[in-house]
Amino acid sequence: MMSRALQLAKQGLYTTRPNPRVGCVVVKEGKVIGEGWHQRAGEPHAEVHALKQAGAAAKGSTVYVTLEPCSHFGRTPPCADALVEAGAAKVIIAMLDPNPLVAGSGKKLLQQQGIDVEVGLLYGEAYQLNQGFCQRMTIKRPLVRCKLAMSIDGRTAKASGESQWITGSAARADVQQWRARSCAVITGVKTIIDDDAALTVRSEQLHIEAAKACPPPLRVVVDSQLKIPVSAKIFNGAGKVLVATTCKEPNAISRIEKLGAEVVVFNDTSTTGSVSGDNSNQRVPLDLLLNYLAEHCHCNEVMIEAGSTLAGAFTKAGLVDELIVYMAPVIMGHEAKPLLTVFDMPKMADNIALEMRDVRQIGRDWRMLIQPINKLS
Amino acid sequence: MMSRALQLAKQGLYTTRPNPRVGCVVVKEGKVIGEGWHQRAGEPHAEVHALKQAGAAAKGSTVYVTLEPCSHFGRTPPCADALVEAGAAKVIIAMLDPNPLVAGSGKKLLQQQGIDVEVGLLYGEAYQLNQGFCQRMTIKRPLVRCKLAMSIDGRTAKASGESQWITGSAARADVQQWRARSCAVITGVKTIIDDDAALTVRSEQLHIEAAKACPPPLRVVVDSQLKIPVSAKIFNGAGKVLVATTCKEPNAISRIEKLGAEVVVFNDTSTTGSVSGDNSNQRVPLDLLLNYLAEHCHCNEVMIEAGSTLAGAFTKAGLVDELIVYMAPVIMGHEAKPLLTVFDMPKMADNIALEMRDVRQIGRDWRMLIQPINKLS
Repeated sequence: MMSRALQLAKQGLYTTRPNPRVGCVVVKEGKVIGEGWHQRAGEPHAEVHALKQAGAAAKGSTVYVTLEPCSHFGRTPPCADALVEAGAAKVIIAMLDPNPLVAGSGKKLLQQQGIDVEVGLLYGEAYQLNQGFCQRMTIKRPLVRCKLAMSIDGRTAKASGESQWITGSAARADVQQWRARSCAVITGVKTIIDDDAALTVRSEQLHIEAAKACPPPLRVVVDSQLKIPVSAKIFNGAGKVLVATTCKEPNAISRIEKLGAEVVVFNDTSTTGSVSGDNSNQRVPLDLLLNYLAEHCHCNEVMIEAGSTLAGAFTKAGLVDELIVYMAPVIMGHEAKPLLTVFDMPKMADNIALEMRDVRQIGRDWRMLIQPINKLS
Repeated sequence: MMSRALQLAKQGLYTTRPNPRVGCVVVKEGKVIGEGWHQRAGEPHAEVHALKQAGAAAKGSTVYVTLEPCSHFGRTPPCADALVEAGAAKVIIAMLDPNPLVAGSGKKLLQQQGIDVEVGLLYGEAYQLNQGFCQRMTIKRPLVRCKLAMSIDGRTAKASGESQWITGSAARADVQQWRARSCAVITGVKTIIDDDAALTVRSEQLHIEAAKACPPPLRVVVDSQLKIPVSAKIFNGAGKVLVATTCKEPNAISRIEKLGAEVVVFNDTSTTGSVSGDNSNQRVPLDLLLNYLAEHCHCNEVMIEAGSTLAGAFTKAGLVDELIVYMAPVIMGHEAKPLLTVFDMPKMADNIALEMRDVRQIGRDWRMLIQPINKLS
């Protein structure tokens, strides 16, 4: 039953943000009498949908829910109250609310009303489904994916910058599904200047129907010196744009703000892993940028789609939770650009250890999902 | 029945060289009455083993054989005669002798003796099993495999040369099986100087029992200037050593010959793809080296285990039939050494196109078998 609830929760993979994905199954006498999942922020939670389907029969039922029912008034009334009202006899919860300040309060409310509560069934699967949401709640940092496309010999572009296309259309369409589930897509100003990337979700390339309903992800440009051209394609296209910079120059800032983008000025704290996207001195502190995206933009999952410098800086700083590497069956040669620019690793002992989580063929290319060992959950 | 004959032929994968791998099944009234495979050069051919097992019952039988029976006296008498003598009624052959000068003569002899002959059943599989032998016979070049071990970001060693170990023990043991089936292993003098590689087959790492019976492969060092140290480990260990050079200096040559190695002097014909393994001017012509290994050393399959310069030169020259790339889940950084040194590929259109034939996990690493598109059979 919890498996089914998780399956339902996944229906919201592309649409619930910034809320978590939650599924609910109402069971009575061994039979499912109600199912629901959270579809979109501001709309009813999973439990409400499921209880509505069950109707009066919910009295005395057992309810499976993938995340602890809320006990507070948000945009909708508390689900714990709804469960009490419906007369649920037992509630089985996969995981508690990840926010340590509120975790357990929904459970407590249910118990106080005499409902039998169990916690922890399929916890691992439930956590994985909302890892980004959990990280935002606990460490104030989204789940960070870094997407890269390379040749067999680990090259991402010719020395001239030419890179279209290393991978085939199937791999490029696959990238769109990852964009669609991300709250934000992060790039560097160099990618904007070189490729004039729009970083929007190409709905026509989404082969998963549910992904087409995704809200447009926030597009983030790391641009320490505010060198982004006003003519950049990214300023058109659906969704907001945020430019992260260290430049405090009011004219430069208002030039960008006039285009409808938000400019966020960071102080270069010289944290390891900060990078400008160019060669100037002041660099956007990447850890603080991620904190900002979590706290102010409610980003659960973000995806980095950048050149080797910015991607390398995020990776070296230990800020990447998952690398998504598309490998094309082609040799580009040693004069082409590297996968990741990561300095100061002279010895084998300095290597960044990874674990392959998934390897599969996509069209004529291969996709690897890779986790840094220190990020293994 | 031909499938079974091919299966038998594969028993000789590690031992028949320089002969091809051949299997034979004798069938009468739908039942297998004799099976055999060629085990070792100088010993009886597959047909002889199978006919012996069948005995007098071979009269009137149908014989399946993966390669055309020989019609000449080599180290053993002709198999075609043996089939005639045994009274075979029908002979089904997967492929004719690849040597265009003799192909068809065995078939013809059988037909002249009134035996019904069919050719071509499972030709593709039969060819693949002996592709190296076929290439030696037809284009006077062995099947060339190039083994590489790299990080996720396509790096093979630190800038200092440190590289032990990128891959885990399972992948390194897997390399030993490929060495065991090769007639020769080719490296560059730089690998000898940097790693003091012996390039012998480590029998204790062979998990396939039959591989332990392999004759030691010829070990070939590309060393244009004869800079190889006399103390190099490669001069010990089982099997012969061949040093390919452009250096005509008698003292330098005799210094190596005294160690029991063969020195072969090539003229630098400035063929595309020649390389010295160091930075001097004269370079061993790689195509002529392969011709030499085919014609004079009877090499069917050779494996390149070299640094990025020599491996890159073989690849760029289109001399590699298969890349065997072991990828370890680790990031080494852009300052580490490249997978392949291949110059003059400034545009995406200059890329070398490949096809992935097999991708699988070996221990914690991943192995890719890759064919250049122009080498697809």
